[in-house]
Amino acid sequence: MAAGSLALQRSLEAQDSNSSVRVNGERLRRNLEGLSLYGRPAGGTFESGVSRTAYSDADVAGHRFVVELIRAAGLEPRFDAAANLLATRAGSDSSLKTLLFGSHIDSVKSGGNFDGDVGSLGALEVLQSLNEHNIRTRHPLELVVWSAEESNYGSGLSGSRAAAGQLEPGELDRVQDGVIKRDAIRRLGGDPDHIERARMNKGDFAAYLELHIEQGGTLDAAGIPIGVVEGIVGIDDYEVTVRGFANHAGTTPIPQRKDALLAASEMVVAVREIATSIPGKQVATVGQISVSPGAPNVIPGEVKFTVDMRDLDARKLAAMADQLHHRLNEIAARNGCAVEVEKTGAHAPALTAEPLRRAIEQAADSLGLRHTRLPSGAGHDAQMMALLGPIGMIFIPSLGGISHAPGERSRWEDVANGANVLLQTILGLDRA
Amino acid sequence: MAAGSLALQRSLEAQDSNSSVRVNGERLRRNLEGLSLYGRPAGGTFESGVSRTAYSDADVAGHRFVVELIRAAGLEPRFDAAANLLATRAGSDSSLKTLLFGSHIDSVKSGGNFDGDVGSLGALEVLQSLNEHNIRTRHPLELVVWSAEESNYGSGLSGSRAAAGQLEPGELDRVQDGVIKRDAIRRLGGDPDHIERARMNKGDFAAYLELHIEQGGTLDAAGIPIGVVEGIVGIDDYEVTVRGFANHAGTTPIPQRKDALLAASEMVVAVREIATSIPGKQVATVGQISVSPGAPNVIPGEVKFTVDMRDLDARKLAAMADQLHHRLNEIAARNGCAVEVEKTGAHAPALTAEPLRRAIEQAADSLGLRHTRLPSGAGHDAQMMALLGPIGMIFIPSLGGISHAPGERSRWEDVANGANVLLQTILGLDRA
Repeated sequence: MAAGSLALQRSLEAQDSNSSVRVNGERLRRNLEGLSLYGRPAGGTFESGVSRTAYSDADVAGHRFVVELIRAAGLEPRFDAAANLLATRAGSDSSLKTLLFGSHIDSVKSGGNFDGDVGSLGALEVLQSLNEHNIRTRHPLELVVWSAEESNYGSGLSGSRAAAGQLEPGELDRVQDGVIKRDAIRRLGGDPDHIERARMNKGDFAAYLELHIEQGGTLDAAGIPIGVVEGIVGIDDYEVTVRGFANHAGTTPIPQRKDALLAASEMVVAVREIATSIPGKQVATVGQISVSPGAPNVIPGEVKFTVDMRDLDARKLAAMADQLHHRLNEIAARNGCAVEVEKTGAHAPALTAEPLRRAIEQAADSLGLRHTRLPSGAGHDAQMMALLGPIGMIFIPSLGGISHAPGERSRWEDVANGANVLLQTILGLDRA
Repeated sequence: MAAGSLALQRSLEAQDSNSSVRVNGERLRRNLEGLSLYGRPAGGTFESGVSRTAYSDADVAGHRFVVELIRAAGLEPRFDAAANLLATRAGSDSSLKTLLFGSHIDSVKSGGNFDGDVGSLGALEVLQSLNEHNIRTRHPLELVVWSAEESNYGSGLSGSRAAAGQLEPGELDRVQDGVIKRDAIRRLGGDPDHIERARMNKGDFAAYLELHIEQGGTLDAAGIPIGVVEGIVGIDDYEVTVRGFANHAGTTPIPQRKDALLAASEMVVAVREIATSIPGKQVATVGQISVSPGAPNVIPGEVKFTVDMRDLDARKLAAMADQLHHRLNEIAARNGCAVEVEKTGAHAPALTAEPLRRAIEQAADSLGLRHTRLPSGAGHDAQMMALLGPIGMIFIPSLGGISHAPGERSRWEDVANGANVLLQTILGLDRA
């Protein structure tokens, strides 16, 4: 047998043995349950959900827990300047770029124990399994736990935006609950005075992969264990201010009223109509509203509310924005009110790379797991990484589509399946 | 000339001279400006309005100011158990019942300097003018400054309700901003442990009169200086709770949503439609709304809002209540939500007494002031007195109909006119 043939045979054997490697689903479950303690409501259980909001005491403690898990897996944890938590596993071929993968562990207030956590600890489980099976990849592998993914200080995706150079001007000097964001980042382990050190460059990685719960009900309803994400929808955020005239609720005849809440209510209905008036999966939500002066016996003089619009197609988002301005102005004028529509945030849609979608599908196939393609309606750190290189995302089912709530659940079997698909996708890409 | 004739002549002379007596409009203005200091926004002027909410430091200080004014007018101030401030002026005929008149001096948050104040200090001005002109009435006269007329601890009209025996069970033990209502009453000068001592009985007074700003724009628009109130509208208060399902704003397809705010918004529009779907002057207002969890990227799971419905006709209010339940249930069901409609308050309509309306009209005629009859869309302490005896109310114009706001204004001339109509109404009733 020629030397070349021997090398090929070894490679094929390795591929065979690598294809049969599986994560330790029990350990992954234990780690997720361990993490769930940080931010658990007093007297609650795993089922009570979690409030591990970005930079909170619970978030700091949760990160410390993951740091220890990383060490226990035989890896060296480090924080970058944006308090992203990283761990690198060397590859055998120094000419190859990193395969980067991970998620986040901060939660919304009263959120669940799967959003972000599954992808973060699933990624760690992949590395630990590779260590245990003594599998050396050609590419360097890098785990990342992005900081502050959920909304904080008026924005989300903080850690991955810092890595992609997408922080907003003055963002680090914003104040929330009396704490400057700069200090919050420092508390978590970052170095906000040198935030630029967290920057990654275009082409720094061969691929970015993220395992995540779907947060919607498509996979669960269809009984399909693996979702292959086509892309992350673009999100346009608006704050709308409606100005009418505050007056006495008893003495002001109806025709003389300029009721800002009546106008705003028609606007909320219009926002829904804008989303449903054209075919497609686009969504629009009013999640927050406040009234001034806000007394039962005073006609509302001013109302503020938020609008959140999402779609995978940037042109559709632009068309919805046009409609929003048009409809809101018409409603305000008809009610004798003024309206101001401020765009407070915009995340462009981020498509996943077709070769990575196919790699995920092959991995799922190799594991005998059914899969389907679908968009992600939620924002993810992956969309920031899409600015720097090819991204791929793996979804597992969320029971009942519930997320961002204590009732957020995924089956432990699906969690392990997702981590195995991540593992096999990495091994597949590493062979390619 | 027979003795009887002489007495008649003296009486006619007195009537003549009494008919020409007028209040001191300048002093009334000065007193109102003086009172406006208590609760004035920092750095503000009289035009900045006032926040003299019931039982606040400003309210306590404002009462102390009025106590001094009462003493300066040569009267003896006293607080009853409900912290109503009273001052009696003896009459010449001990067989006659009291003519009671007054208003309140507490304000809404960011209110104006006329609501309540005009009627309270106008009533004092009437007594002071009678003193100065040495006019002795046959009836005893009694000034009252009712405590806590504006909404406080979930209810308004506190002092007059105490007098009418209409306090709610447990009301004195309610807590607001960390203070028990019982203690708040004590601070203002009341004796909450013997609150029953504030009770008045049916037939205690010959008439109750209240001078007040209209708070609506009818008199101002018509250019008529005096309004003769037909009655105080009934008010039904509701708190509505809409329960949907909180979920992720990006991942939950529109058809799967149970958006409590969308449903609530349709309900706000329906409340307006209920008010306008039948002819009449009835009004309905949603002044307060709150959303839970209340994040831009979370579909609202629960919304609470208030409904305030008013009309002079109790049957119309009942019909509007029926419609409210019917429409809200239909909207909730159509949006996959549940709705609960709780009645949180009910004030029955209170009609003024026809003889008192006519006495006010005669007084205005004698002063050469045009007048018109109109309902009061706002609640007033008079409605509680209507439970005990005949009531009459005098309105003066509110410029632009603005009230419960810093821009609340009445012309000083109209303020003096109103006080003169009150004075002449009292003298007219005293002669009758």
